[in-house]
Amino acid sequence: MQSKESSLNQEESFRVRKLEISDKGKGFIELLQQLTVCDSVSDKEFEGRFQELSSYGGDHLVCVIEDNRSGKIVATGSVFIEKKFIRNCGKVGHIEDVVVDSNARGMQLGKKIIGFLTDHARSMGCYKVILDCSTDNKVFYEKCGFKQKEIQMVKYFT
Amino acid sequence: MQSKESSLNQEESFRVRKLEISDKGKGFIELLQQLTVCDSVSDKEFEGRFQELSSYGGDHLVCVIEDNRSGKIVATGSVFIEKKFIRNCGKVGHIEDVVVDSNARGMQLGKKIIGFLTDHARSMGCYKVILDCSTDNKVFYEKCGFKQKEIQMVKYFT
Repeated sequence: MQSKESSLNQEESFRVRKLEISDKGKGFIELLQQLTVCDSVSDKEFEGRFQELSSYGGDHLVCVIEDNRSGKIVATGSVFIEKKFIRNCGKVGHIEDVVVDSNARGMQLGKKIIGFLTDHARSMGCYKVILDCSTDNKVFYEKCGFKQKEIQMVKYFT
Repeated sequence: MQSKESSLNQEESFRVRKLEISDKGKGFIELLQQLTVCDSVSDKEFEGRFQELSSYGGDHLVCVIEDNRSGKIVATGSVFIEKKFIRNCGKVGHIEDVVVDSNARGMQLGKKIIGFLTDHARSMGCYKVILDCSTDNKVFYEKCGFKQKEIQMVKYFT
């Protein structure tokens, strides 16, 4: 059993926070490479995209968990706010690109990321938050309070 | 069989174009009500949301088909461009809120809308375009060149 002290230490070591520009040097891109195709991104490309997303304010949030002991980014996820006409000009949060470092599994970091992004969407006035995932990850998202609704269709250009 | 002339007339009568602010008076909101919950939206609310979406330029497009004979909006759909770090700072088009007037089915208007939105996503440099739909609509989207990939999970706040 984990002692109260070590549990508190874990809380301290794995806080969710917003992405910072210095996170590129802390393995942020390498972490995304565990999710999908993501070749090396130059500092300039990264900075450009970072600034672009920052300009959207709360409408696009990328969050990370840094392991304060190693200084490495071990989990990330993003949410952006879509503005609609339906639902009385309602808003919907879209969660994307959630990944936890394969060496940092079993510490509920994924749940922390989803909780953070969901809370953000709620605070932005969304009436719902949605995400697409593989059937393998369905149970995880159910534990986070999500339910399956529709199916995702895709068309690739490249 | 449809004559060439009447087919051309249909082409003229059902062109896809961008949403205009005057479309609220042409049944745009009533059309959305065929899709989901959408109480009456005031002119001020509509204009506010319209201007907000317009400020995103090509990153958020709402298109419509107006029946030029009746002056009514009979089909609509939207696409917005998400900017990512993965796929080398790639972009993804998200298609949302596609609906064809129940009295205007069988004229391939849905296909026209999807084609327009897909072309827009491609022209904006997206590597893919995605959408969520019910299993009932899967065959329609397959005819539009889409394939099923993932499942959609949702959490409602209200």
